[in-house]
Amino acid sequence: MLLVQKFGGTSLGNLERIDNIAKKIKKNVQEDGHQIIVVVSAMANKTDQLHDLCLSIDQTPNIMEYDAILATGEQITASLLAIALNKINCHARSANAFQIGIETNNAYGKARIRSIKTNQLLEWLKTQVVIVTGFQGVSLENKITTLGRGGSDTSAVALAAAIQAHECQIYTDVDGVYTTDPNIVTDAQKITRITFEEMLEMSSQGSKVLQTRSVEFATKYGVQIRVSHAVHRGIGTLITFDEGSGLENPVVSAISFSRHEARITVRKIHDKPGIAAKILQILAKKAIEVDMIVQSVSQQDFTDLTFTVPENSYNQTITLLNTMQTQLKTAAIEGDHKIAKISIIGIGMRSHAGVAATMFEALALKNINIQAITTSEIKVSVLIEDKYLELAIRLLHAAFKLENSQNNIQ
Amino acid sequence: MLLVQKFGGTSLGNLERIDNIAKKIKKNVQEDGHQIIVVVSAMANKTDQLHDLCLSIDQTPNIMEYDAILATGEQITASLLAIALNKINCHARSANAFQIGIETNNAYGKARIRSIKTNQLLEWLKTQVVIVTGFQGVSLENKITTLGRGGSDTSAVALAAAIQAHECQIYTDVDGVYTTDPNIVTDAQKITRITFEEMLEMSSQGSKVLQTRSVEFATKYGVQIRVSHAVHRGIGTLITFDEGSGLENPVVSAISFSRHEARITVRKIHDKPGIAAKILQILAKKAIEVDMIVQSVSQQDFTDLTFTVPENSYNQTITLLNTMQTQLKTAAIEGDHKIAKISIIGIGMRSHAGVAATMFEALALKNINIQAITTSEIKVSVLIEDKYLELAIRLLHAAFKLENSQNNIQ
Repeated sequence: MLLVQKFGGTSLGNLERIDNIAKKIKKNVQEDGHQIIVVVSAMANKTDQLHDLCLSIDQTPNIMEYDAILATGEQITASLLAIALNKINCHARSANAFQIGIETNNAYGKARIRSIKTNQLLEWLKTQVVIVTGFQGVSLENKITTLGRGGSDTSAVALAAAIQAHECQIYTDVDGVYTTDPNIVTDAQKITRITFEEMLEMSSQGSKVLQTRSVEFATKYGVQIRVSHAVHRGIGTLITFDEGSGLENPVVSAISFSRHEARITVRKIHDKPGIAAKILQILAKKAIEVDMIVQSVSQQDFTDLTFTVPENSYNQTITLLNTMQTQLKTAAIEGDHKIAKISIIGIGMRSHAGVAATMFEALALKNINIQAITTSEIKVSVLIEDKYLELAIRLLHAAFKLENSQNNIQ
Repeated sequence: MLLVQKFGGTSLGNLERIDNIAKKIKKNVQEDGHQIIVVVSAMANKTDQLHDLCLSIDQTPNIMEYDAILATGEQITASLLAIALNKINCHARSANAFQIGIETNNAYGKARIRSIKTNQLLEWLKTQVVIVTGFQGVSLENKITTLGRGGSDTSAVALAAAIQAHECQIYTDVDGVYTTDPNIVTDAQKITRITFEEMLEMSSQGSKVLQTRSVEFATKYGVQIRVSHAVHRGIGTLITFDEGSGLENPVVSAISFSRHEARITVRKIHDKPGIAAKILQILAKKAIEVDMIVQSVSQQDFTDLTFTVPENSYNQTITLLNTMQTQLKTAAIEGDHKIAKISIIGIGMRSHAGVAATMFEALALKNINIQAITTSEIKVSVLIEDKYLELAIRLLHAAFKLENSQNNIQ
């Protein structure tokens, strides 16, 4: 099979680990007969070291040159792994973005891949393992770009899409995607199979297994991703297509959450077009990230706007809005800086009424107050007080019987 | 003027030095109005660190991947310098071998430059300083190559040739080329102007200022090189064309030397074609470097062959030749492992008789025995006992009045 395998910085963190990964790849090639493109990240901490080096020259370094320096981290790992593979008689070569032709736009530091040339790559693959430097591309003006932190996942998925690989295998330090955080719910189950849509909601909710953009990319180009542990054996979690709402589809697949959020509520604003936009523009100008946004139906031409910001932007946001209060003509600006968001996610939700009711009832039974609610087609998210978060996760994990959810397919 | 400026690893050895070099370049661009290509080496010790990293994976690492790893050293320096320049509002960009199109052959680790594309480079130069990663190119099979240690000098000269720069300025930790080592002769004079031919003889004699290949390249393409100190002011030494044997050309320009040589003499070998070649082939197979070779005129079909090898190859060479003695049918193999070579160099020598006589007489007056002599058009070299080397250098420096040699042009 034609496979893309991506190894992260921790899996390649020292020379012994590089040797181990090399043995694993050799087995996949020589015993299992696969053709393999390997995508590598920089060795653990290397990117941070290079970042610090740049900032020691200039606190706001030229972004193009910053990218060029960061990119050397992956070049070193790629060549070290190639050396390790050749040492054990597994023919391999490294290839960087220039050599392959991984073209991106000019958004240095967070570039987007525009196209990947495959002729040369497929030719090389006939006779050897090709080890590609993840996280980088070449801009329209022929400079190295980086794709943003975690961009190696995106590189791997994009390469898999370009060469139409059977699977994009992401090797990491967890053995798959779980129904929720096993540190909180000991019964949390590894999910064997999850849809792109569900995984997207998981990623953006702070499940740190995969970079959100890589899942978006996989969704768009239909690339199956398998997340597995870099060292342990196991089939991991396959992220794949929705195969219809059969009985085997659990209503709720997983529970995700994020801490350290703050809620802001702007009371009694004039419900006319442009007011919400005006408020959000003020925040955008200061680069304050806004996550959830809820606006209730207006009463007598007035409405309330609630949104969340990161906890450490709370004070700045309140101050900013207070100075604008007269201009915005609002009655009051209030908030809570110790908030958590908890979400239930499930592709099966589309065809099931009552999921939200089950969620709200489970929380209400333990007197956990819901401060705001948003929903998407396959997700329901609520804001609660941060101190109730772990209790709420356990309640919902039990309410949706996730401790048994994978029994039939594992 | 269109200039190429090369800075070595010591000049760029820490962040403060990088900032200083940036200021120097900014002045050259904004006050003096030059267009500048900067060629950089890796920061001091970086190449050694990367070398060690490769060998920690495999003692005989894949040479292509080894080159790719070593090349990251220059990429980091180039981008750091670009960041430092942009910080002080001097527009600059780094450019590597892929971006420019510096094409080499496939001799990884010691590649030779075949061609350099200049369209893009000249376009960039119109608006900014271009900082090129020295020491590297791209092979015919699209892999990074390195040019061998010290190859950044060659990169600089090749770029100067390609864009027809006015001068190739090599900034280093000495302020120019001297008539001989100032540590030995306190009167040693900085040479303001020296010909390519003289510099070539100096380089290969162990004057560590410039890599020999870079001087060969400069000679071939007529690129004027100026060697100066990276920090101190001064015009340095200009390496340029022979402008004829006018009166101002000193007969002897400089005295160079090398220590730690060993002399081997093979006595009474049959003087027929192929014998010398046979002996040298034996040594070549074992990668023993042979420098000077002298064969005297034969007597009754027999001759002696004398040559030098590095001191630390002496024992191996003697052993090797002893085992071949019957086959070679030689009378004796003898040698001396504490030998030095001393050379007088001067373009003026071509039209002056008596230079060698002056040399030999000066040495004879102090009873320094000459063990072998070779000459080229612009050089006379002799082998002497190592312990007399410093005395001999002082004697010759005085005999050829080099302490006054630069007075008229400095």
